[in-house]
This record gives sequence, C-alpha cells and structure tokens, in this order.
Amino acid sequence: MYAIVMAGGAGTRLWPLSRRGAPKQLLALTGETSLLQQTVSRLGSLLKPHDIYVITSAAHVRATRDQLPQLPPDNVLGEPLARSTAVAAGLATVLARRESDEVALILPADHFVADEDRFADALRAAARVAERGYLVTLGVAPTHAATGYGYIRVGERLHPDDPAAAVDRFVEKPDGATAAAYLDEGGHLWNSGIFAWRTYAFRQAVERFQPALAGALTRIEALHRTPGWMSDVRDICEPLDAISIDVGIAEPAAAEGRMAVVPLEAGWSDIGSWSALLEALTAAQGKDLVASGRHLDRGSHNVLVQGGDRLVVTVGLDGVIIVDTPDALLVCSRERAEDIKPVLDEIARTAGERYL
Amino acid sequence: MYAIVMAGGAGTRLWPLSRRGAPKQLLALTGETSLLQQTVSRLGSLLKPHDIYVITSAAHVRATRDQLPQLPPDNVLGEPLARSTAVAAGLATVLARRESDEVALILPADHFVADEDRFADALRAAARVAERGYLVTLGVAPTHAATGYGYIRVGERLHPDDPAAAVDRFVEKPDGATAAAYLDEGGHLWNSGIFAWRTYAFRQAVERFQPALAGALTRIEALHRTPGWMSDVRDICEPLDAISIDVGIAEPAAAEGRMAVVPLEAGWSDIGSWSALLEALTAAQGKDLVASGRHLDRGSHNVLVQGGDRLVVTVGLDGVIIVDTPDALLVCSRERAEDIKPVLDEIARTAGERYL
Repeated sequence: MYAIVMAGGAGTRLWPLSRRGAPKQLLALTGETSLLQQTVSRLGSLLKPHDIYVITSAAHVRATRDQLPQLPPDNVLGEPLARSTAVAAGLATVLARRESDEVALILPADHFVADEDRFADALRAAARVAERGYLVTLGVAPTHAATGYGYIRVGERLHPDDPAAAVDRFVEKPDGATAAAYLDEGGHLWNSGIFAWRTYAFRQAVERFQPALAGALTRIEALHRTPGWMSDVRDICEPLDAISIDVGIAEPAAAEGRMAVVPLEAGWSDIGSWSALLEALTAAQGKDLVASGRHLDRGSHNVLVQGGDRLVVTVGLDGVIIVDTPDALLVCSRERAEDIKPVLDEIARTAGERYL
Repeated sequence: MYAIVMAGGAGTRLWPLSRRGAPKQLLALTGETSLLQQTVSRLGSLLKPHDIYVITSAAHVRATRDQLPQLPPDNVLGEPLARSTAVAAGLATVLARRESDEVALILPADHFVADEDRFADALRAAARVAERGYLVTLGVAPTHAATGYGYIRVGERLHPDDPAAAVDRFVEKPDGATAAAYLDEGGHLWNSGIFAWRTYAFRQAVERFQPALAGALTRIEALHRTPGWMSDVRDICEPLDAISIDVGIAEPAAAEGRMAVVPLEAGWSDIGSWSALLEALTAAQGKDLVASGRHLDRGSHNVLVQGGDRLVVTVGLDGVIIVDTPDALLVCSRERAEDIKPVLDEIARTAGERYL
C-alpha cells in the first residue's frame, strides 16, 4: 500500500493567510504544524515514509520537502503545471512506479481531522474494499445542510456486516434547499475527496473515462527519468483538460457500479473556507472562540482570530472571522466567508497582485 | 472675547489609536486634520488666533504647539498635573490674564461638529447670554436615548423670542430607560460640555462653589511668571480634588438659577467612543460604511474602519468597528464600544503597558 498526498491546491478562500507563495497546505492553520505535515503524520500508523508520496506544483517542491524531512526527497513530486486532481493523481501514480496490485490512498494535503484513530480505521476499511477492485471514496455523515460540499447518494451495502456501500451517484455542490432535503431524507454523505483504489483499477478507469489522460500517462511512463524528461512531461500535460477525480473518474465509475463508499466519522473538514475552519476548530476544541497569536477578548462568540505578531482585541463580536497578516487584514462575517474568492479579483485590480 | 480649548483628555475609549503618547485630540479621526486643529479652526470666524488659548498636559505642550502654528506659542498652556476640567478652566483663566468683563468660550478639544456655521451661531448666541452674567452651556437636542451623555433639564425661556433658557438641573449619564423617558417627554438636552461665561462670573462661581480652587487660583495669580513658578503651580494644584465643570460649577450654579442653556444643532458629537465616531461620521457623510486607509468591502453595513498602512478587507459585516494600528488591532461590536475601557486594564496586565 502507498499514499499519494495531493498538495496542488491554492486555498484562495483562505486569503490573506494563504497566498500564491504560501498556499493553504503549507500553513499551520489548526495547530503547531502545517496541514500538509498533519496529513503525512496522520498516515504514520498505516505506512512507512518511503510509501508516502506528495505531488505539488513545481514551485512548491522545495518548501514541501523542507516541511517533510522524514520523506525521501524523491517522494515529493513536482507537477510542471496544474491540471486538477485526476491528472495529478495519474502523474503521481506513474512517477511512483508502484505495482499495479498495490492499493493507493489518495488524500488532499489540506484537510483537517479531529480523530486520527477513527480516520486511520476508515482508511484501512477503504483499503480492504479497494483490494476487491472497487474505486473507493470516503463519505462523511453531514452535520448540517452544507452547500460547500459535493454529496454522495449511498446505494446498496456491499455486504450486510460491512458499512461499505455502492455509490449510487455523486451530486455536485447543491443549493441550500436540496442540501436540507438530503439531510432530512438521509442516505447522503459528503464527498471528502479522499480515495482508495488498486493501481490497476485506477489506470483502467482512466483508460475508460479519460483516454487522453491515459495516453499521456503511457507516454510519460516511457520517458521516465530520461534527460530533460520533466520538460517533456510539461509538453505532454499542457494540452490536457483540467479534470478532477470527482467529475472525470468517480462520477462515470459510479454510473457503472465501480465506486464504493466507506463512511468517515472523525471530525473531518476540508477547511474550504474560514468558516469551515472556525466550525472544525470549535467542534474539536469544544469552545466557540478560537484564537491564535496574542489575543484578548471580552464577550465574543463564534469568532476565529488567526493572529500574527500584533495584539488583537475583540469585544462583543458574534460570528466574525479575523485574519491578521503583516500586509493585509480580513474581517469577515462567518456567513459570508465564501465571498472572499470574488473579492480577490477586486484586490488584484485595485490594491495590486502583490496581495495575492 | 477669548476661548479656552480644553485639551487635557486621554480618550482611552478610542484605544488603540488613542495612546498615552498620542491622545484623542491630537488624532485625525474625522478628516485630514486632528480634532484639536478642527476645534481651533472652527473658532476662526469668531476669534483672532491670539485670543485662542489651549490648555493641555505639560507632556503634550510641544505636540500641541506643533499642530497649531497659527497660535502664539504662549497661548498653549501646560498643566503641571491633571485635575479635571474645573481646575483646568480656572488655571487657564488665570494664566490668560484676560479682563474680567470679557466673555470666555470653554471648548473641549476633541469634539466633532458637522455644521460649522450653525456651531459658530450657537457660540455667538451663548456669548450674548453670557454677557448678561449667566454661566451658559450649549445643549444638544437628543437624537436617540443615549446613555453616554449627561442631560440638561431645560427650564423657563430667558426671553420669549430667544431659544436660550434657564437650566433646571443637570442629570448625570442616565440608564437606558431614563434616557428613553427624557426623549419621550422632551425638554431635555444633551450636555455638550461647551460653556460661555464672563470671566468675573466664572471666578465668582468658583469662589462660591469651589473655595479651595478659588484660593489656589488667587495664589497662582500672584506668582505669575516669577522664576520657577510652574513648579509652585504644581505644588498649589497637587492637593486639589479633580473637579469637573459639570459637577463642581454648573450643577450648583443651576440650583441657584445662574445657568442658562443655548441649543446647539450642528451635527455635534463628543466622540466619546468608537461607536459615537461611527454614528457622527455616517450621519455627516450620509453612508453607513466609513473607512480610512486602503480598504475594500463587500456587503458590509454600519462599519467603521480606521485603517493604517495595511490593506483591510471587510466582508458581510454589520455593526462592527475595526481599528488597525501597527502593534494592535481592535475589532469591536458597535454596541459594545464602551467596553473598551475595562479591557485596557487587562491589556496592561497581560499584554503590557506599552500597548496603552
């Protein structure tokens, strides 16, 4: 078994802490270590360091290696250009040159997990289902009618004694009413974006659903480590569409009954926004004000303070997120944290690219 | 006629912009120039510069003179120690050595006025009433049931054609229900802390209601500009109680029918807190988001951003005050702006005196 940690995201919704030069996964958002370091450390009970690969953009290979001294440097793979998760997973699979009957765990580098033991148990369960040839995803029991996650409609159990089930279908991020109906109706899980599959099963799915990607991977495999090969890899990947695993692989595989889902109940969050981080940390810490840095409060609730070097004083706030960085400050309503992304365009236009 | 601008306040409720070294009146909170500069400039239509005096703490004399190059340097008077407004007004009166039949205007240095013409008209009206021997205060028509201001119960008109009236009595800052009843009932004005009186009338009131202060002033008068006299002034003032004009002079004078009130309707605010500043600026500018510095917003209302050098981005906030300074950041609910004062003790204790 081996793992591919997907560290190619930008995390722009976590501006102003997340920047082009310091993307989300490299930040210590939830504790002393970065999300990437936590993701790799979380695999410690399942895998040896040389079985853990990280794929990130070429620009962040050095910083990623620096954060993960326990991994062989060659296990940190640089993507010459960003083409979403299916391409990244394919590239990492080929570059890792693992046996086709091995199980690969595919994990985003920037998620939060409160209960590490239950998380490891879920990965083990997913690996067992994957050994039987399924493409397996981890599904999270919804705690509220979130509109920021994709949903999985759960199908028949694979075995009466096993919580693993077939995936009926994937649903893209629904609106609030649909999400509420799913919550009411039951039988729906959040799509965590964490997968397990046998290498051959994945390659086979790529061939079937993404033939252009499959062709590219075959060509890259042939090139492997010839002189100047990364430049060739770039040329090969350049014409590919950006294809996510969810849309490009998992959705069509589910339609053909090849996808299974294993439930994950471990205080998981994808920290897709500041409000998701607030929610994850307040749940994990059992309090409604979460602060880092030098901070004093009087009577605030549902507040996240991501502090820097300055003293931050909050008074009487409710549902507010404060992110303090040396050159930019964000103060945002918890309900409106998703609106940061459109603001970034305006920032680039009026305040300057240097803030991104 | 002459004016005494009272610039002895600390403005701790406007932390973290207002600090020990840079008190409220020296800050540009409402525009390009400081509150002190605006207060002095506002007197320009009434008085020549050499008839305008400023009394401030000895520590701020230099900064005050720097901000007011149009005044003779000797018109900026340094108080050797802080003993509240009655002592400061008495000291300034004695140090200014004006004739006893001249009218003195007494104005706090740190107020905001939207309509300068109506303000000057009200001062002229107050001066006319003061010439007749009254101690005159400016009273502001309440716009809401504020609990941060003292109230004046208005008595009989002095003359049917003149809005000036006797002061029935002063009421210290009331609770919310009492303030609401005053608003309902009518006949109450906010106490602006702006006064006009003839010099002899003030000295007479000091003799009658504050004999210890009167004795101190007589001794200081005799000392005037003898060698080392400021050290003697300090020794003379040291044993005096801190006595405000409101409590020490105006209240007992009202009880004896010596106080008159002239209405002031000029968009006045004492900017006693960040929420008062927000209210004053939104009313003056006709918008519900007031920001200084580099700032971007998406969908916020009732927000004050007092920015510094950094980019400040606000998203979806309602009723929030943000004050950004190089070493400290305040994010405060508009409703809880008064709670900053108790927080300062905690800041001193846990974060350090250097933040004050």
